[in-house]
Amino acid sequence: MSRIVKVAAAQLGPIQRADSRASVIGRLLALMREAKSMGADVVVYPELALSAFFTKWYIPDDAALEAEFFEREMPGPDTRVLFEEAARLGIGFHLGYAEVTVEAGVKRRFNTAILVDATGQIVGKYRKIHLPGHPDYRPEYPIQDLEKMYFEIGDLGFPVFDVFGGVMGMCICNDRRWPETYRVLGLQGVEMIFCGYNTPIHNPMAASEDHLQNFQNLLPMQAGAYQNASWVVGVAKCGVEDGWEMIGQSSIISPSGEIVAMCSTLEDEIAFARCDLDRTAVYKHAVFDFAAHRRPEHYGLITSRKGAISPFPRTDRPTERTVPAHHDEE
Amino acid sequence: MSRIVKVAAAQLGPIQRADSRASVIGRLLALMREAKSMGADVVVYPELALSAFFTKWYIPDDAALEAEFFEREMPGPDTRVLFEEAARLGIGFHLGYAEVTVEAGVKRRFNTAILVDATGQIVGKYRKIHLPGHPDYRPEYPIQDLEKMYFEIGDLGFPVFDVFGGVMGMCICNDRRWPETYRVLGLQGVEMIFCGYNTPIHNPMAASEDHLQNFQNLLPMQAGAYQNASWVVGVAKCGVEDGWEMIGQSSIISPSGEIVAMCSTLEDEIAFARCDLDRTAVYKHAVFDFAAHRRPEHYGLITSRKGAISPFPRTDRPTERTVPAHHDEE
Repeated sequence: MSRIVKVAAAQLGPIQRADSRASVIGRLLALMREAKSMGADVVVYPELALSAFFTKWYIPDDAALEAEFFEREMPGPDTRVLFEEAARLGIGFHLGYAEVTVEAGVKRRFNTAILVDATGQIVGKYRKIHLPGHPDYRPEYPIQDLEKMYFEIGDLGFPVFDVFGGVMGMCICNDRRWPETYRVLGLQGVEMIFCGYNTPIHNPMAASEDHLQNFQNLLPMQAGAYQNASWVVGVAKCGVEDGWEMIGQSSIISPSGEIVAMCSTLEDEIAFARCDLDRTAVYKHAVFDFAAHRRPEHYGLITSRKGAISPFPRTDRPTERTVPAHHDEE
Repeated sequence: MSRIVKVAAAQLGPIQRADSRASVIGRLLALMREAKSMGADVVVYPELALSAFFTKWYIPDDAALEAEFFEREMPGPDTRVLFEEAARLGIGFHLGYAEVTVEAGVKRRFNTAILVDATGQIVGKYRKIHLPGHPDYRPEYPIQDLEKMYFEIGDLGFPVFDVFGGVMGMCICNDRRWPETYRVLGLQGVEMIFCGYNTPIHNPMAASEDHLQNFQNLLPMQAGAYQNASWVVGVAKCGVEDGWEMIGQSSIISPSGEIVAMCSTLEDEIAFARCDLDRTAVYKHAVFDFAAHRRPEHYGLITSRKGAISPFPRTDRPTERTVPAHHDEE
């Protein structure tokens, strides 16, 4: 058997802060039409695909932050054309954006992604759970990582959706580094995971590791695909954005863990693959037949404990969290 | 700071069923002495290092199985010389073996590994939790995978041990494919994980994937190291054993996920590395600062659910477990 989903991973090159919203929407439409011309069933855009990756800046004025970077409705005045064009072309899409909403009289902000079917209807929504970085402005850092300041932790869990002929899930950027993300989706029988990302090469919290950003982008996505017998579609916004370089390597990864398509530029570019959802079956039924092989009775710490606690604390070990307190937020 | 542990991953070439126990012990001693000559603090032997990988055969006679392949005591008559030589040389070791024991009047069998310190004392023990394969003899398969028949599921959890100057953990073979293994160790602050394996290239349950065995060996070990900020030492018994080929690629993997040493033959061979346990700190304190970033409130399914359950069951999806019942053991 085979159940083919034709996927266009629509990598975006940089969006400068000065770029107009109209120019961004124009690029998204061009990628959508190119994807359709390739026969794609779904075009996958990155995280926060409508603007510069603004979490690198400290913007203390909430009203200004939201006016410049957040969406109050989806579709909204700027984005409605994406839905209309998708319906006209008969192609689905995945889009990441900054969401501001009022729920029960309380304003809330999330790093959000949606799935839209080939009729232009929103059929799935996810709000990012793993927010990286630090919750406080750090003037000593040349580039900030303020997702914990600008967003709440997602409150929708890791849901799956019945669309494009399979069981589809989503995660966003830093979520892809955590095996729990893929496993919670895997336990719901996920067959394809969409994941947009913005990943600056320079991380002031671990600057010694900057040269490994590309490697450490692909590694957890490949492992997550393999260990959960799912396709993974990872899509970057990349290139030099207002002076800060971000990685590319947007990839489509098979349930074997193999990369079957990957972008080779740091610009707007499509990586395309015919993804057979039935390719997941051999893994779901053999080595990763969870019902036969998993041992949840031995996994208790994964849900009962948040931080790492060594039973052998020693002050002479830097791994024992003797670092300055500002590394220990929450 | 640095805390160097010098590690010798002591890969074993094949052990034929006809090989004498004395010849096997002689090879282990030769590798131990070679490791010591390189300055190693610990020599790491594979899973079930004392015999042929017998789970590939159906051996219905328990007494014969145990007499040929299982250890009733550790150290025992054959293995005592390893402990004596380790103490004489002042080197630690990790050893996998088949354990049969009587506890509370009940005979029990486990796939076991131990850590022995540089004085020859056993300081850590682990019993394999993820037993792969099938619990029943399958005459249609040219090679069996009968760990579920020959062993009980380990009953010691995933403990860590204070030895060699760090927080050390163990897992065995198929355990390395499961992210839960590394995560339970990571939540205890593990700094180095020892993992022996025997991995036949041919898996009758997923024969279409045989060509990916080497790739799928390294991928989860590299991801497990990176995602838990730990060294991983994976050690194979490999080569052609009684006609069945097993993979090699014994590797020492850093907390970055990078392979820093790897064997290049399918024979007895040492891969050596100076492993700085403080190399884990940058990862434990930044991207994988569990206390700052993990969200156990969203991980509930990992411990509450064993098998995958799709909310959208369809009989036309092979991933919905419509395969023959003998794939659905337990």
